[in-house]
Parts: sequence; structure tokens; C-alpha cells
Amino acid sequence: MKVGIIGASGYGGLELIRLLHNHPEVENTILFTSSEEGTVFSHKYTHLVNIYDQPLQKIESEKLAEFDVVFSSAPAGVASQLLPPLIGKGPRLIDLSGDFRLKDSAIYEQWYKKEPASALAVEQSVYGLTEWNAKEIRQSQLIANPGCYPTAVLLSLLPLLKEQLIDGSQLIIDAKSGVSGAGNQPSQMTHFSETNENTAIYRLHQHQHIPEIEQAISSFASEAAPITFSTHLVPMTRGILTTSYARVMEGVTEAQLVSCLEETYANHPFVRVIRETNKFGTNQVYGSNYCDLYVKVDPRTNRATIVSVIDNLVKGAAGQAIQNMNVQFDLEEITGLSLVPSFI
Amino acid sequence: MKVGIIGASGYGGLELIRLLHNHPEVENTILFTSSEEGTVFSHKYTHLVNIYDQPLQKIESEKLAEFDVVFSSAPAGVASQLLPPLIGKGPRLIDLSGDFRLKDSAIYEQWYKKEPASALAVEQSVYGLTEWNAKEIRQSQLIANPGCYPTAVLLSLLPLLKEQLIDGSQLIIDAKSGVSGAGNQPSQMTHFSETNENTAIYRLHQHQHIPEIEQAISSFASEAAPITFSTHLVPMTRGILTTSYARVMEGVTEAQLVSCLEETYANHPFVRVIRETNKFGTNQVYGSNYCDLYVKVDPRTNRATIVSVIDNLVKGAAGQAIQNMNVQFDLEEITGLSLVPSFI
Amino acid sequence: MKVGIIGASGYGGLELIRLLHNHPEVENTILFTSSEEGTVFSHKYTHLVNIYDQPLQKIESEKLAEFDVVFSSAPAGVASQLLPPLIGKGPRLIDLSGDFRLKDSAIYEQWYKKEPASALAVEQSVYGLTEWNAKEIRQSQLIANPGCYPTAVLLSLLPLLKEQLIDGSQLIIDAKSGVSGAGNQPSQMTHFSETNENTAIYRLHQHQHIPEIEQAISSFASEAAPITFSTHLVPMTRGILTTSYARVMEGVTEAQLVSCLEETYANHPFVRVIRETNKFGTNQVYGSNYCDLYVKVDPRTNRATIVSVIDNLVKGAAGQAIQNMNVQFDLEEITGLSLVPSFI
Amino acid sequence: MKVGIIGASGYGGLELIRLLHNHPEVENTILFTSSEEGTVFSHKYTHLVNIYDQPLQKIESEKLAEFDVVFSSAPAGVASQLLPPLIGKGPRLIDLSGDFRLKDSAIYEQWYKKEPASALAVEQSVYGLTEWNAKEIRQSQLIANPGCYPTAVLLSLLPLLKEQLIDGSQLIIDAKSGVSGAGNQPSQMTHFSETNENTAIYRLHQHQHIPEIEQAISSFASEAAPITFSTHLVPMTRGILTTSYARVMEGVTEAQLVSCLEETYANHPFVRVIRETNKFGTNQVYGSNYCDLYVKVDPRTNRATIVSVIDNLVKGAAGQAIQNMNVQFDLEEITGLSLVPSFI
Repeated sequence: MKVGIIGASGYGGLELIRLLHNHPEVENTILFTSSEEGTVFSHKYTHLVNIYDQPLQKIESEKLAEFDVVFSSAPAGVASQLLPPLIGKGPRLIDLSGDFRLKDSAIYEQWYKKEPASALAVEQSVYGLTEWNAKEIRQSQLIANPGCYPTAVLLSLLPLLKEQLIDGSQLIIDAKSGVSGAGNQPSQMTHFSETNENTAIYRLHQHQHIPEIEQAISSFASEAAPITFSTHLVPMTRGILTTSYARVMEGVTEAQLVSCLEETYANHPFVRVIRETNKFGTNQVYGSNYCDLYVKVDPRTNRATIVSVIDNLVKGAAGQAIQNMNVQFDLEEITGLSLVPSFI
Repeated sequence: MKVGIIGASGYGGLELIRLLHNHPEVENTILFTSSEEGTVFSHKYTHLVNIYDQPLQKIESEKLAEFDVVFSSAPAGVASQLLPPLIGKGPRLIDLSGDFRLKDSAIYEQWYKKEPASALAVEQSVYGLTEWNAKEIRQSQLIANPGCYPTAVLLSLLPLLKEQLIDGSQLIIDAKSGVSGAGNQPSQMTHFSETNENTAIYRLHQHQHIPEIEQAISSFASEAAPITFSTHLVPMTRGILTTSYARVMEGVTEAQLVSCLEETYANHPFVRVIRETNKFGTNQVYGSNYCDLYVKVDPRTNRATIVSVIDNLVKGAAGQAIQNMNVQFDLEEITGLSLVPSFI
Repeated sequence: MKVGIIGASGYGGLELIRLLHNHPEVENTILFTSSEEGTVFSHKYTHLVNIYDQPLQKIESEKLAEFDVVFSSAPAGVASQLLPPLIGKGPRLIDLSGDFRLKDSAIYEQWYKKEPASALAVEQSVYGLTEWNAKEIRQSQLIANPGCYPTAVLLSLLPLLKEQLIDGSQLIIDAKSGVSGAGNQPSQMTHFSETNENTAIYRLHQHQHIPEIEQAISSFASEAAPITFSTHLVPMTRGILTTSYARVMEGVTEAQLVSCLEETYANHPFVRVIRETNKFGTNQVYGSNYCDLYVKVDPRTNRATIVSVIDNLVKGAAGQAIQNMNVQFDLEEITGLSLVPSFI
Repeated sequence: MKVGIIGASGYGGLELIRLLHNHPEVENTILFTSSEEGTVFSHKYTHLVNIYDQPLQKIESEKLAEFDVVFSSAPAGVASQLLPPLIGKGPRLIDLSGDFRLKDSAIYEQWYKKEPASALAVEQSVYGLTEWNAKEIRQSQLIANPGCYPTAVLLSLLPLLKEQLIDGSQLIIDAKSGVSGAGNQPSQMTHFSETNENTAIYRLHQHQHIPEIEQAISSFASEAAPITFSTHLVPMTRGILTTSYARVMEGVTEAQLVSCLEETYANHPFVRVIRETNKFGTNQVYGSNYCDLYVKVDPRTNRATIVSVIDNLVKGAAGQAIQNMNVQFDLEEITGLSLVPSFI
């Protein structure tokens, strides 16, 4: 397979390069850029010396059309312009931004403050939450790869909502993310001296992943009520932990919640349900494509606390994108993705 | 004033030493130990060379009786034994553990799995949440200094609950703490290689601060319903950020919530209500006795997200303890505590 | 005393504000800016709410002339313009940049790539390494406050060089610094995701503090040979540790090196010589004005390894600047600076 | 191939498991323990759920004899007992501790304070610095895998010493290590709150890797003079950066040093010589088997500063061990080791 990547300089792009390097079916990866044409990529990123020493190439639609797959890890607003011309042509298209995720263009505009992609392109795209949408993904040319927060949240909540074991009408989701989620552009918010030894609010009620989560709940589980969703930045590079709070339905036990999750993901290699543990944290999935789940019911309040961890750059971005590519090409989902979490 | 400290080797004790060193009314601080008698303290803690080079002294009730104040920063289960014999004698007593906080001894036993303090001692003790209980604190010999999490949570929620601006029947509190809250005993959970680059669950529904928060809500604001309370460890040393979620009462606006907090704390120098900000994090109170508050109402869900930050070792422990000492001795609350947050 | 600060937005400036807030002789601190006139400082830096809520003022020479002291913590190239007009007028002047440190303007140009300050101003300035130059500092209006690396290096090496206990002809100095030394301007080098979990070269042989160290060795100890000086960035915010390597002179023992350091600093409260220890690190001076020293001779090679730690923002910048102010005003050196290291 | 691991619970062992999981020639990995027999490994290490769920097995010589390879990642003093009985039997033996590295048993005892391995076993062992000893490694049953510091130091210095481009008589080596090098046993030195925001001396002149480095210089390059070697702990988990200082031989240029390194490693895939760069740090090899080198000559002093970075758990331990296994089994060196550094 011949793979093209638009927006390789971002962290999603770097992670695609890292993972695709060991993908047995990928023989060639070419990087495209809008502004750094000719730059030898390993001059910019020293860690890629001897691994990726080719120059970045100019984005041209005809060239892209010759690839088997084109990933776009450019920021929102870019793929909506670059990918639609390739629809109906050769390559499978996987976009890591939010440009094709929201079916309602008014909602996209409201949350992204950008021009939406064409209605036709959005209509033809399929939401790439692999464990929940593999059949559609296999048949679709254009995949809207999920956001990092939605991946962690949806994998943990969808089974419980679908089976009506928890009350979806009052979901409260408290998310904590490492700083790499903010991308590679330096800013005061990501300046080491002000980020280190600091846990801070990132966005309250205003994250653009809110409508994405709500839309996916409606699609895959049940009618969705507005969620309360807060994001926080913690002083680490990789990892997302989401803590979700929901009322447990009358008569439902913790054991039922655990069973529901286990049964849902019994044949899905990347989702692990952890039963008893005295430690549950982001480092248990570090560098890997796993999403680990943990659920506890508080008998004092009859509320469930549902915890989910992912590596935001792998299962939350590049890993899931490759998992979707595997599905599109009828490869095993784990092809090229059997990475053991590094833990330390 | 002559000050004695029991349990100085712990992080609460070290912080008492740091803060008392510059307290203008304290002329002498003596450290007591149950197991390290004779150890020159600066041999154990190099940062105290030339600052505290005296040996640790053996704990003896008669000696302690001669002090003006005795702080105990020993772990739970110690002060319940050591402080009651001093009741009715000279020194003011300030305990930083949970031993005297819970009025109901059965609840203490259930959550702490330890023998409770004598009923008489508990009865005579006063809860040291300074901004809410100064009058009682002034008159009491024995202060139960609040826990770190309860301090952050209560200062942010009590005004809103008392004024019935938010619904106390379904409170959900998601707390994130730096690792120093786990104390100075090495363990796998606090081992650098497994803590760094890791955000993890600390305790779900089972933290012993839960009954403390519920009791204080009942005392100071309104009848309390059971809370949902989760704690997380984030890879930093100092700081707690609590994110609380509550339904806003019919017709109440965000502006009213903000005003309520501002009015409550108008004359309290250590609680700051932050209005507009694009960054709100633990580093804005780092090393200081401040508790900063921030509140946002989500119009989509009509829920309020109420955020609070403290330095867990200062306002969450040693700083508030000294603030209480100041109140007991009719000093200005800020005496010795006018530390500017270091921010970086 | 009335204090003015130019360049308060930088980290040196923030630290001046933090420390001066509790200085008993300072009654008023005014902040000056070249570009942010009118900005309420606590809107920019939330940690200063209720502490410094005044607006930044425009830099005007006549206004500055009315202060007792003017600190400049602006970057190199600014103080060389702003301070000379104040020479001969009222305020004592303390510059935290490198603009007045190097007596030879050609060397300044070579290393700083900037226009040097006027020869007259440089001539009138005095190098503010307090422990070594207090007499000159007391009498001088204009102080060139030392750089962070030179402070750590010189305090550890000058006594040994002056007494000819080590060989100054082949000094090798390996310095490790926290990231705050790089200032508050976001860049790729200080971007959290690329700085965290990374120890990196900062500058090899090319740091502008090299001529400063060599000049000070010549002034205070002995003729200086060129030094080998490397700097590294480690993933922490505050702190510098310098490891210096020198041949021990024939017949000289480790005990003599230790004694020499102890005798030199016997009456200097901020320099501590640590004898036996199994831990020696930057956290033992964190947040304080201490410089701690440690020396070991390797009997296999007859070389001494001399280690020095400071908080780069305190003893390496704002703390030493205030120490110099204290000397200029005949206050005790520790006035306003008796901060206990926070250690954790 | 069937692989056995002794001491899998340590960080070296965990990393062996991580890397061997994707090694194409390894079909089975069995873990052995002296004290935790029967423990399901993924109960102890949650990150291995679904990856390694087998129980730990008791160490028995006859069982070990049936494997193709046995790695020992137990602490010093263990392999010296467990591996010699397997000499002459089936498995290749690769020890990650220091037990077989030092040819002189008196030196082992002096630096390790432990009983040395039998003289015969030591004699039969071969030092596993792959790039320098592949021929011997291929033919030997027992490999003494190099220490983490020696790997970084030797790869950077051996070529220059062998070609007599630098002066080996006065080598000074300043090493900085992440905390994982201290292993998985909690202690005060690795306690998060005292390690975070702290750069500290680890060992001065006393590290047991000193004789290992000196012995390897003698073996592979030239007669060795005693080195000055200091180690420091920096607040990160993975990574070692060593900065070595040496006098450049008369008339030798920086270009010659660079060429020498490039030529030496032209056919060695894991050693990269970085020419121009404005960033050179441990994160460029994070998670990979690379050792990156960088050298600069200071024209002012005619000294070379030679910098080397590795991931201490990969090239400094498990990665190099597998590289040696590949050599022993005539596989390509990169088999199972073509990991791209994660960088962030």
C-alpha cells in the first residue's frame, strides 16, 4: 500500500509516521505540506534521521489521487478543502480533524467557527469509531476519524446507554488530557514553565467535541440529552482519562455494568475492561492503541463512575486512523498496531 | 509564641516549619517525634541546614503542656491519643489529621478503620474551616484542621448551597490532586517512574473526606445528601483542583452565583473569585494560602461547573492551620501568611 | 522605599514582585512597560489578583528618577538604553540582564550580538555577586546583577581558585538548568510536549555567560584560562545544578577544599556548604535565596567534582538583586529574603 | 524461538516483554520468578492484560535448559548464581546485570560489594556491546549485556579513542539519567514528591559502571586511564544523556571527529551521528534502540564535547539484549527492533 499524509508536521502526523513504519502492508509513505515544500523531514524532526529523510512534497490533487490511502492530520478547516476533490477517485480518505464528523453543518459552524465541508462530502463520510461502525467504515471511502475525547468517552458509555443500564439524561463527563492534545504550536498555555506543576481548566462546556459525543450517542445508543463536559490539562504529554458520572437505572448492579462492557468488547482486541485494580491510569495504555475501561457503582448514591483511558495520539488519533484503514482494506484490525503499552 | 510540632517529618510538618519560620509572633518552634529522638532535623532534611539544626525531641505530655500552641501533623490515629491529655492545659491544639473532624465516632471508624478519639475530645473540638467558623475557632482550644479536599470543595460550594442557588441533592465532585497529598512514605503508587506521565484514579467513592464534606455542608449550609466524590492523582507535587457539578436552581443566573461567592468572601483575604480568565489552574495559588474560585453555568444543561484550586500543603494543611492559630490568638488572619503564589 | 520595575512581565520581574511583596522596607512597587501600558497586571497574571491590581505604567525617565531603586529585568539590550540616563540621579539601579556585566564592550558585542551600553555606564557599574563584592556594591549606584549560571559557578569555584587549591587552567563546567531560565516567550524549545521527558543540550561552548565567568574569575580569584562550559535543559521549571571538574593541586585534600568553602562563607547566610549527604539536589534550595555547595575529590584521578545548586529565579536573579539592594541601603542582607526552601 | 526471562518484574524485564511481543522469530516467552510463583503477571501489571496473562513460573534449572534463549534481568548477584549451571547446555544466555561484565573478580567485589561469579563463567562470557563485539557475541553462549551508562559513553568515545583523535588520559564524563534507571523499588530517592522538580547528584566517582567503561576502553580502543565519571538524576522516566569532555589531539579538527564517528557506524543501523542541530536531547531516541551522537569542538579551549543519548531501557538494556540475541541467532540486528522514537 502507498500512503500519503497531509499535515505530517503535527503530532497526529508524527504518530502516523511512527506507526506506519512498522505496518506490514504499507510499503511507502509520502508526506505532503502546504508550506514547507522541499524541507527534508528529518532536518525538522531529528528523531526521524535514517527513518524518514525524504523532502516534504507539495500538495497536489492529482498526485494524491494515485495513493491507496490519504490521511489528513491537518487542523480543522483544511481537510474540508483538500479531501472532497478526491471523492470518487482512487484513495481511501481518512481525516483526523473534525471537518467531516458533524452531520449538521450549522452545528459545525457554531462550534468550529469555520466554513463547513460541502454537504455532499459530509453525507458520504462515515464516523470512524471502529468498534461501533466497522461495517460502514469498510464500505466508505471517506472516514471522519473520531476526536480524542469522544473516543475515550464513547467507548466507555455507549454500551451502557444502549442497554439502558445508565441514565443518559444527566451525563456529566470530566476529562483530563495531557498537553500533546493541544498540538505542536507553542503558546502560553503550552509553555513548559506555566504548564509543569499545574493542573488547569482547558475548556468548560465549550469544547467542540461536545456535539460530536452527543451525535454519536444518538447514532449508536439512544436519544441524547445535552451532556455536561469539562476538559482539563494535566502536566504530562500523552494520555486522556475521562471520568463519567451517571445515575444507574433502577435495579441495575455494578456487575451488570461490567458484564455489559465485557460482552460488548469481547471480540474487540483494543478495548479492555479492568475488573479489580488498585491502580488505573493513563500509563497502562501509553504508546498503544488500547482503551481501558473501569466502572464502579457508589451504593450511597446509586451513581456509576465510569473511567476510560487512552493514549490520545494513538487510539485517540493515529492508531484509530490506522485501525480504520485496516478495516477498509480487510486487514485484521490489529495489523501494525500490536504495540505493548510502555507503562513506564 | 512558643510552638511545638508533633509529626514534623511529614510533608504537613515540613510546611509548618517553612511557614512558621517567617511568622512574626513565633519565636521558637520545637519538633517532637515518637521514633527519631535525637536526630538533627537538618541531617534528615538538607534543605533545613542553618534553618533548623536542632535535634528532634521525645514526645512527652508535660513538655508539650508548656507550649502556646501544639500542632499535630502526624497521621490519623496518633493525635487522638496524644492531644486529649492536653485538653484543659495551656496550649492551643491544632490537629492536621482527621482524628477530630467527624462528630460521629461510628462514621470515623467506618471510613478510617481506626479507633476513634474520645467522645469528649471530639465534642470539644471545632472544625477549622477558617472562613466559615472563625468565631468558634477563636474560643476553642482544640481545632480539627480540615482535610485538603474538603477545604477546596467546601469553600467553593458552601455559599451557593447556603443561598440555595444550586441543588445540593445531586452533587458530583471530581478532584485532582498532586502527589504530595499521598505523604512522604515511598510506595509503588508514588514511585516516580510509575507516577510521572500518568493520570490515575486515586479513590472512587471511598475517600475518608466524603463524610467530612457532607458533615460540613450540613453544619454550615443546608441538609446534605450523599455526594459523589472521586479523587485522581496527577503528575505534579503540589496542588488540588476540584471540579464540582450541580444543577442550578430555577431562574438563577451565572452572575448570581459569582456575586454570591464574591459577597461571601469580600472580607476574607485568602479566597479569590476569578471572573473572566482563559487560564485557571493550580499554579496560580502555588506555595500560597489562597483558594481561588471560578464558576460557569452551561446554558445547554443549566448545570454549574464550580472550580476551586488550592495548594494542598498550604491552604489544604499547614497554611490553614496557621490561619487558625492566628484566629485563636487574635492576630490578623494573614499574619505570616502573606505569601505570593510563585506561579512558575 | 519606593521601587520601580522595568520588564515586570518576564519571570525575573514576577519573582521580584513575589519577593518584594514581603520586604519590610519596601512600601510601594510600580511596574513599567514599553508595550503594555495600562494593562492591569493581575488581568495578565491571575496569580496576582488582590496582590498587584494596578495598571502597568509607561516608561518615562523623569518618573523613574523619583524612585529609590529601579530594577530592570528586561532582556539584554534594553537596560543599556534605559538606565544610563538615570546615572547621577536619585535611584539606585539594578539590572538583571547582561548589559553592564562585561567590562570589554567588544566581548559584549561578540557574545550578545547587540550594541553595548556606553563605556561610561559600564565603567560605573559594579558586578553584583554579593558575597564577593559587597563593599563595591554598597557604594555603587548601578549594579550589574550576575547571570544565573555564573552565580552558581562562581560561588562554588572562586574560593578554591583564589586559594589555589584547584587548577584553574583546565576548568570544565557542566550546567543543568530548569526551563524557566529560557524566559516566558513560548517557543518550540520550551513547548511542553517537546520539553517534558527530555534532557537536552541547551548551548555548547557558546553561552554568553562564559565571558562573564572568566571575567569574574580574573577579578576575584586569579588569572583565568578559557573554560569549557556546557548548558543543558532538564524537564523542571526552577533550579540550576552545576557540576565543575578541576584538577586538585598537589598535596591538597578534600578536607581542605571543604574547609576553604566553609571559611569563605562562614559569615554569609545564603551560601551553605553541605558535608555528608546522600542526596544533593536543586529542590533543597527551591524558592529560596540559598546557594548550596558540595565537593568531592576522586582519589583515583585526583580531580575534584564541585557541585552547586541555586534557584535560578531567586539567587540566580531576583533574590540576589534584592540582596544587592539590601547592601546598597545598609540593610541586613537577609532582609525580606529569609525564605525557607520549599523542598517539595 | 522459545524465550525465558528471569527477573521479569523489574523494568528491564518489562521492556523485554514489550519488545519481544513483536519480535517475528519469538513464538513464546515464559517468565520466571524466585518469589512470586503463580502470580498472574497481568494482575500485577495491568498494562499487560490480554498481552501476558500467564502465571509466573518457579525458576528451575532443568526447565530453563529447554529454552533457546534465557534473559536474566534480575539485580546484580542473582545471575551469577543462576546462569552458570546452564553453561554448556542448550540456551543462549544474556544477562542484563553487571555480574559477568568485569573480567577481574577483585574489581567486581570492590565496586559491587557482592560475591563474584565463578572465574570460569566470567571467562566464557562476552561483553555485549553489539556494534563493537558482534563477532564474539555470535560465537558465545553467555553475553554480559552492557550497563546503560557504559553503552551511551562507549559508543560515543570508542571510535575517537581508537583513532587517537582525542586524549584518553583525562576523560571527564558527566551523565544525566531518568529515574527508571534506579529500578522499580520505591525509595525516598525515587519518591515522586522529592524527585519531581529536582535535579540531583546520583553518584560521584563511585558508580559501578566506572570499571566497566575503563575495561571496555582498554579492550576496544587503547590503554585506559582512570576516568572521572559523575551521574545525575533528572526528573523524567526514560533517557540518558552523557556529556564527555576530552582534549582534542594536536591538529585534529571537529570535521575529523564527526567523520570518524560516521565512518565507524556507517553500517550500524542503531547509531546515528547528528551533524547540525539546534536541539539534541533524549526524546529523539525515546522508546527506540537508537544511540544518537553529537560532537562539538570548542576552538577557545581545543576541547571536544561529545554528547550521546539513549533510551536507558532500550539501547541501555532490553533493546541491546535483543540485538545481541539477533546476532547470536544470525538474524538481522534490527529484527523486532525497528521502533521509531516516539519523540513526544
